[in-house]
Amino acid sequence: MKTKPPIPKIRNKEVTRKKILDTAFWLFYSNSFNSISFDHITKATRLTKGALYHYFSTKNELGYAVIDEVLKPITIQRWITPLEKFDNALEGILNSISTNMVKSPKNHIALGCPLNNLIQEVSNTDPIFRKKLSEVLELWTTGIEFHLKRSKKLGYIHQSVDTKCLAKFIVLSQEGAYGMSKGYNSSDAFKIFHRSLKQYFKTIAGNG
Amino acid sequence: MKTKPPIPKIRNKEVTRKKILDTAFWLFYSNSFNSISFDHITKATRLTKGALYHYFSTKNELGYAVIDEVLKPITIQRWITPLEKFDNALEGILNSISTNMVKSPKNHIALGCPLNNLIQEVSNTDPIFRKKLSEVLELWTTGIEFHLKRSKKLGYIHQSVDTKCLAKFIVLSQEGAYGMSKGYNSSDAFKIFHRSLKQYFKTIAGNG
Repeated sequence: MKTKPPIPKIRNKEVTRKKILDTAFWLFYSNSFNSISFDHITKATRLTKGALYHYFSTKNELGYAVIDEVLKPITIQRWITPLEKFDNALEGILNSISTNMVKSPKNHIALGCPLNNLIQEVSNTDPIFRKKLSEVLELWTTGIEFHLKRSKKLGYIHQSVDTKCLAKFIVLSQEGAYGMSKGYNSSDAFKIFHRSLKQYFKTIAGNG
Repeated sequence: MKTKPPIPKIRNKEVTRKKILDTAFWLFYSNSFNSISFDHITKATRLTKGALYHYFSTKNELGYAVIDEVLKPITIQRWITPLEKFDNALEGILNSISTNMVKSPKNHIALGCPLNNLIQEVSNTDPIFRKKLSEVLELWTTGIEFHLKRSKKLGYIHQSVDTKCLAKFIVLSQEGAYGMSKGYNSSDAFKIFHRSLKQYFKTIAGNG
């Protein structure tokens, strides 16, 4: 009898787990967390319910893993890593807003921001959800703050600016722009947000 | 047989209708639209299900009336009317944010903003909800814009400022602050929002 070597087996498990997480992330995002059941996920992944339960014993457990293993890396990849290329983080932030928000596909506008949606939907229902979602907000704001500090040292941001406060203001107004665009199903709020932030950034710029 | 005069009857109907709307508003706000059924509303109002159906034949119909008859007046009363007392609307807006957000009761912080919650929850599920909710956003932003224009004429806001764009930016960042405070269950985001907006307003002030 031929037995498979253990390494590919582990690899397969990782691949299946990642497939479940990515599928669940998309289904939660494009519908809502509450409206998606394990049945929807087994149908979309073509796994049996038994196989799915092997990885996640409850939907909340799956939700936690989606936050930690999909939402966190996406947040870093979309909003933090691109700033590494910019000496002036303010320029980088405007660039990310333009790429990720103003130019977002038309069919994504009504979906809003996956983090904002989950906060609105589940943060009051379960303390673990609140903890995990506030960790993503924290990761996002501290990432932005890190790059603002760097640019302040380089003279691109005025020395009087409190970078921690500025980072939080950027993230909260960004989430607000997502909410408003969702409400109107229009990218107008993204354009207004970009324009207003650009004007604001001019007033706090250093002489870099 | 004694018959009641028609006028009080109409009055009673109005009182009952208002009681249903106010109760439904609070239940939707403190829980969610989807989690509240007609059973919850009859229990809280002590009406029979038949009486409730007499006023609203579906939960969506009740939801529409809550938006038009409760959410719209509350928005005007909390965010627009208080600005009438201020020559400088920027000062009035900061004052409203301080009163309505920074000093909001501790048990309200995790509930967020009733408009923002409804947008996140139902605007994608039904086009009438989206239309009605975007009307509230529109009412809010045009109200703010009206007062900004007035203050600009009086010289409190710099002539280069686009008041329409500024009004939308204020509302969207306000909704973002509500979302973030809900995520953290903390009023920190309100304080940061107030502080950041105050700093921003200084840079766009006129010589009023």
